[in-house]
Amino acid sequence: MSTPVGNGARDGMTLILGIDPGSRITGYGVVRDTGRSCEYVASGCIRTGEGALPERLQAVFRGVSEVIRLHGPVTMGIEQVFMAKNADSALKLGQARGAAIVAGIEAGLDVSEYTATQVKQAIAGTGGADKQQVQLMVMHLLKLVQKPQIDASDALAIALCHAHHRQSLIPHGLAGAKRRAGRLRL
Amino acid sequence: MSTPVGNGARDGMTLILGIDPGSRITGYGVVRDTGRSCEYVASGCIRTGEGALPERLQAVFRGVSEVIRLHGPVTMGIEQVFMAKNADSALKLGQARGAAIVAGIEAGLDVSEYTATQVKQAIAGTGGADKQQVQLMVMHLLKLVQKPQIDASDALAIALCHAHHRQSLIPHGLAGAKRRAGRLRL
Repeated sequence: MSTPVGNGARDGMTLILGIDPGSRITGYGVVRDTGRSCEYVASGCIRTGEGALPERLQAVFRGVSEVIRLHGPVTMGIEQVFMAKNADSALKLGQARGAAIVAGIEAGLDVSEYTATQVKQAIAGTGGADKQQVQLMVMHLLKLVQKPQIDASDALAIALCHAHHRQSLIPHGLAGAKRRAGRLRL
Repeated sequence: MSTPVGNGARDGMTLILGIDPGSRITGYGVVRDTGRSCEYVASGCIRTGEGALPERLQAVFRGVSEVIRLHGPVTMGIEQVFMAKNADSALKLGQARGAAIVAGIEAGLDVSEYTATQVKQAIAGTGGADKQQVQLMVMHLLKLVQKPQIDASDALAIALCHAHHRQSLIPHGLAGAKRRAGRLRL
């Protein structure tokens, strides 16, 4: 489920941030949605180190804030988690998610959530795609010659999914001829 | 387990913030630690409403930030959760915790975590105390004539526990004659 989209695709060109939060590594990806296709801008990982929890959460908050400051995205997608392995890992993941979401919304971005199935569906055409397939499709869609680190790749996949869902909210005809139901195409 | 205390008890008088985070209601409590006893300053609840998750987390972040701006505490205690009911509630609680901790640390406070057992031990003298007993002891210790709302009361209990643990890090003799092992006394 995505939340309503607040910022528009001004000039048909929108910078979109994707975030794949984690208690140790938070992946980020920035893509430029031209209205017809998406182009790679940046991606990477925020590593929280081995310090105490407050410092690790601050690293996530500051890392996401810095990516926003550097690249200027206006909208952000983040993976929605329904099932975590157990209550302890869910709590840790929730803390990192909370820090990342607050960084986005405090910087004025609208923030939408997507399930893993929605991300896979948008990228690979099927909710049953595996991580490897999603990574290869991210490389293909963004014309990448090198394989990104897996957390960065997942974040780029979320950004592409967010681009896809935002376009589907724009009146028919503006969404780009190359988009088809359920999947992004080049 | 508490993280190391960064700010000192300047002039023997320290304002301490306690936070009881929750996905719907986050309780806060501020006490003044005089070095001999603790005095009530403020308490209340931050209600996150029924909106989308990013707005609810922003409400927690901004609510905690506003309490810090209004009262000027230099140090913050927050309850550490080991066991949540299930993975879903752990994720929701984690998100609220993440937003609250980031608000504290971004405002320059040191942030320490305490288990529920540590809080009960400090307030009621036993880790097996129930919520009602803790609430009555909070009223007694802070000379309150009215019963605070339960989330506010829990937050005050965390602030008192934090005061107790900070004092125990101060060299013997400065900690106030009225403190005894494992429990705060008036």
